[in-house]
Amino acid sequence: MLLKEKSRERKKTGLFILEGQRELSLASNSGYSIETLLFNPDVISEKEVVSLFYGAKEQTELIEVSDAVYQKIAYRESTEGVLAIAKSKSHALEDLHIKSGKVLMLVAEAPEKPGNIGALLRTADAANLDAVCIANPKGDLYNPNIIRSSVGCIFTNNIGVGTTSEIINFLKEKRINIYCAELSASEIYTKIDFTEPSAIVVGTESTGLSKDWLNAATQNIVIPMEGEIDSMNVSVSAAILIFEAKRQRKFQ
Amino acid sequence: MLLKEKSRERKKTGLFILEGQRELSLASNSGYSIETLLFNPDVISEKEVVSLFYGAKEQTELIEVSDAVYQKIAYRESTEGVLAIAKSKSHALEDLHIKSGKVLMLVAEAPEKPGNIGALLRTADAANLDAVCIANPKGDLYNPNIIRSSVGCIFTNNIGVGTTSEIINFLKEKRINIYCAELSASEIYTKIDFTEPSAIVVGTESTGLSKDWLNAATQNIVIPMEGEIDSMNVSVSAAILIFEAKRQRKFQ
Repeated sequence: MLLKEKSRERKKTGLFILEGQRELSLASNSGYSIETLLFNPDVISEKEVVSLFYGAKEQTELIEVSDAVYQKIAYRESTEGVLAIAKSKSHALEDLHIKSGKVLMLVAEAPEKPGNIGALLRTADAANLDAVCIANPKGDLYNPNIIRSSVGCIFTNNIGVGTTSEIINFLKEKRINIYCAELSASEIYTKIDFTEPSAIVVGTESTGLSKDWLNAATQNIVIPMEGEIDSMNVSVSAAILIFEAKRQRKFQ
Repeated sequence: MLLKEKSRERKKTGLFILEGQRELSLASNSGYSIETLLFNPDVISEKEVVSLFYGAKEQTELIEVSDAVYQKIAYRESTEGVLAIAKSKSHALEDLHIKSGKVLMLVAEAPEKPGNIGALLRTADAANLDAVCIANPKGDLYNPNIIRSSVGCIFTNNIGVGTTSEIINFLKEKRINIYCAELSASEIYTKIDFTEPSAIVVGTESTGLSKDWLNAATQNIVIPMEGEIDSMNVSVSAAILIFEAKRQRKFQ
């Protein structure tokens, strides 16, 4: 199935595949438009599909497929029997609605592994961040492995995508402090005042952040490490920084 | 290869397979005994293998294998050309050397995914924890995916393995406070005094901690979450708790 396999195809059409009842509900509640619903009547009845997901959206196309066809197009092994073709939201920075006030957001530059992106989105949801920006993305946001590993948090977060320079300009325009996680020439993260508008910026585990980010930083920050290997997962480092900000803000 | 595939075989013999030059150095430096070195002369010379890994350990058996055989036994795709059969350390609780004083340790009950265990061990190394205990392990510690995802931190950490009740007894005997990550009836984690001897205890993402842990807790603790889904990765939650303790201890 072209949409499932090909990132380019998803980008061109703005459509992506969505599997599982829980993810479908989340996407639907988050304002994603469901273009087509495919269901396997061996697993879920048309009536159920309509009552669960069809709602008032009369433009949704409903297609019954045989078990054999369903098995062929489903990516996951779980058999909830319903799969949708949904329209992706705009993730352009100009469409990113950020409340005024003491913004707290996360920026990840060129994150590589779908599992890491999923974990970042889970943390961002739990911390109720104002936004998550992906700078210079390596692939498509609606990669099935990202959807899956985010346990639906891809739909609940306010996500912006752009180049590094676009996002830096965006943050500077909005006067949001830029705190780049970096090992050298950095301040210990607990000494930063995260009660001010803050963007926490993390790079890849292998190469870190690009020079553009380090040059644009209000302050580079570091998590002191005292082990023999001193290599934390990027989603782990981001969470430590985000929750230090949450602590300083008294979890409000 | 039986050692690679079968957890039971690894447990019976106490031997496990170790791949890659970096991991081999780390294991060797951490006091693991290398029983056998297999090398692929197409990639690394016998002289190099001997100078890098053989050292004074004259009991190590050195075996040259053909490229075809090496490809067959290697688990990873990287071709560093050297692979070892090493003897696992004892992870019995009675062999766990814990300094006296203000201990900080992590306990993970029945962690499931090798990737999560690897991430936990990376964080534990970076935080220089006194020990990591695995309660009621679901599988073998020397699973190749755990070794890989820990980026070698499986060798640098002080790891104990036991049943939940054994580890609870161990902690109580040593008068180490037990802080269980739990969503209900819990204190916010930032209100805990982690400068006292502390064990941070985390369960699985699906079922959390068993009742035995919650009953044994000095205090159950929670990370306040304010999202729609509120589901963080277990290694992320553990890291937030561990680094709050580090912050309170001024990273010493």
